[in-house]
Amino acid sequence: MAIITLTTDFGLADGYVGIMKGVILGIARDVDLVDLSHNIPPQDVREAIYLLDGAAPYFPEGAIHLAVIDPGVGSERRALVVRTARACYVGPDNGLFSRPLAEPGAQAWELDRSEFWLPQVSRTFHGRDIFSPAAAHLANGVLPGEMGRPVVDPVRLAIARPTRAPDGAVHGRVVHVDRFGNLITDVPDAWVAGEGWQCRIAGEVLLGISGAYAVAHPGVLLMLIGSGGTLEIAERNGNAARRLGVKAGEPVFLWSE
Amino acid sequence: MAIITLTTDFGLADGYVGIMKGVILGIARDVDLVDLSHNIPPQDVREAIYLLDGAAPYFPEGAIHLAVIDPGVGSERRALVVRTARACYVGPDNGLFSRPLAEPGAQAWELDRSEFWLPQVSRTFHGRDIFSPAAAHLANGVLPGEMGRPVVDPVRLAIARPTRAPDGAVHGRVVHVDRFGNLITDVPDAWVAGEGWQCRIAGEVLLGISGAYAVAHPGVLLMLIGSGGTLEIAERNGNAARRLGVKAGEPVFLWSE
Amino acid sequence: MAIITLTTDFGLADGYVGIMKGVILGIARDVDLVDLSHNIPPQDVREAIYLLDGAAPYFPEGAIHLAVIDPGVGSERRALVVRTARACYVGPDNGLFSRPLAEPGAQAWELDRSEFWLPQVSRTFHGRDIFSPAAAHLANGVLPGEMGRPVVDPVRLAIARPTRAPDGAVHGRVVHVDRFGNLITDVPDAWVAGEGWQCRIAGEVLLGISGAYAVAHPGVLLMLIGSGGTLEIAERNGNAARRLGVKAGEPVFLWSE
Repeated sequence: MAIITLTTDFGLADGYVGIMKGVILGIARDVDLVDLSHNIPPQDVREAIYLLDGAAPYFPEGAIHLAVIDPGVGSERRALVVRTARACYVGPDNGLFSRPLAEPGAQAWELDRSEFWLPQVSRTFHGRDIFSPAAAHLANGVLPGEMGRPVVDPVRLAIARPTRAPDGAVHGRVVHVDRFGNLITDVPDAWVAGEGWQCRIAGEVLLGISGAYAVAHPGVLLMLIGSGGTLEIAERNGNAARRLGVKAGEPVFLWSE
Repeated sequence: MAIITLTTDFGLADGYVGIMKGVILGIARDVDLVDLSHNIPPQDVREAIYLLDGAAPYFPEGAIHLAVIDPGVGSERRALVVRTARACYVGPDNGLFSRPLAEPGAQAWELDRSEFWLPQVSRTFHGRDIFSPAAAHLANGVLPGEMGRPVVDPVRLAIARPTRAPDGAVHGRVVHVDRFGNLITDVPDAWVAGEGWQCRIAGEVLLGISGAYAVAHPGVLLMLIGSGGTLEIAERNGNAARRLGVKAGEPVFLWSE
Repeated sequence: MAIITLTTDFGLADGYVGIMKGVILGIARDVDLVDLSHNIPPQDVREAIYLLDGAAPYFPEGAIHLAVIDPGVGSERRALVVRTARACYVGPDNGLFSRPLAEPGAQAWELDRSEFWLPQVSRTFHGRDIFSPAAAHLANGVLPGEMGRPVVDPVRLAIARPTRAPDGAVHGRVVHVDRFGNLITDVPDAWVAGEGWQCRIAGEVLLGISGAYAVAHPGVLLMLIGSGGTLEIAERNGNAARRLGVKAGEPVFLWSE
């Protein structure tokens, strides 16, 4: 039984996601369908990159990740399947798969064989007409190379990386604000090991990395290592993003004395 | 393995949808449960009609569509199962199934045999007590006629249709506003084939039908053929509904010069 | 095929729920995953208690209820599995399972055997690292006692109960406000049988318990017996919570003349 995950910016009100599942189940009946998120902000490819990157490692080998954040639908942008050592990815060629494409051995194909699409293809909903059928055919064991030709130049977005100065000071940034208002940064835990770390964000200075949410007093901002293994800034029983007035992209600076 | 889709106005916060799935799985274990939407505006039967009509054709033959938008629960309104050539529908007799009932050969039955309900039936949650069990029994192969008597006068809502004048001018209306603020109309693509189409909506005039979202400049209103095969009005990377201040029901007038 | 239900305060935007499902499917492939709610207000353990209590009885025997409302994650709070005659519960030891723990014969174990966790355990996401693996192992037939030692003093929250005076007058409270703004109270239907019941809530007096929503005129506040078998206060085609300006915890007083 194959697993197909779904990630879109369609929301859950309009029925688009249900339609995609109907198309998949019409082609492949023996699948587990798992929603990752359908609340990606409209057309926010970077949020989807972040989400897929965090979720994919927790799925069993062979999972198929279908992602449709597709502002270019109906234009000449290509439809892709990307295969890595652990997983397959299906969606538009707009940078959405920049992370898996950076994995060693990753390969990409263009979904250009119409016999693997729905018989009628609209200009506005390739999630239904091209990507869902492709994911279902993969679940049935069709190989990526049967559905299209290799692509050597898939779109890759530049992803800013945190930097570390010779004295250990770190420049990073907030890469995601979660539902609780926690600020997840791109600063890896290994860079902020040891004692005495201070952090400046949005004009405030925070002292010391805590072990867990529960150790702080309610209302206090704290640094901790988040579930993705990077530095996180949170307010216990509060909303750090609102408190600091920041969103994804906000710079963060760390030093140890 | 049967497919049961679920459409309600229950939202996803209260657990009502999960309870319905628990009831279904207590009766029929070998089913695929697919959510269409649980964010139908409260008691908005017409939105549910629109959504079911767009989604049902994309599911395999034999799918069971369970829909609970039920302002009359606890009154004398009947509980129905409707069978068409492709699918079954289960829900209240309040016009929700006006579209499938209009298909040739459609038949309806009243769910009046209490041995197919939960042992206790509340006056406020027939989705749990009557409709979910009925959908599960259908998935198990029970025939509609075993669960109740034929109904010859199910409730049917009048659904306004677009009209076309002898000179080709079209009067239609917006039938749905999606998450992106795109305005989906009831004007079929075949009526607006060819060049030179103009559209008036909410005091604005739009010129020409585009091939895809991506061809327009951001911020520009455009007409295109949507994924359901009807005319759609969108703002590239924007929200046409907010821009124009319109919602479902808004008239749209088209002519070609 | 085991059933695992999921209840969290994670929302559906961040991918956390999808990650938990990935972890479960990596350990147990033959499961039905059913979302109860992921929109529990952040850290609102009492809302989750209410929701689980209402939903669990509608699932088949043997269902596994995974619930992660976990403000104490990373502290010394224990990780639990609770087994009752009908079901298993997995989550933090913070009172979330006060209701099942009150059932006769209920037993609890601490999930302290790390071989049943993910290899790496974060300090902020035990839903992924400890609770999801435990639920999946239960689905595979592992016994609670294999995953940890018995707990005799699990955290139990005091849950206020309605009271009845010798003259039959009832003091209760609103325990939940649903999506429609209906006020669900803890007053059992058996206490308000018969005619002539009046109710005072938020300074308003309501007269008589109706049979169903549909019998009232739109805009009228009414009392009725809700789907959980308790008194409910609703406004037909309206929002009683907004109208009265009340939320969970609001007292309600009933008497019959």
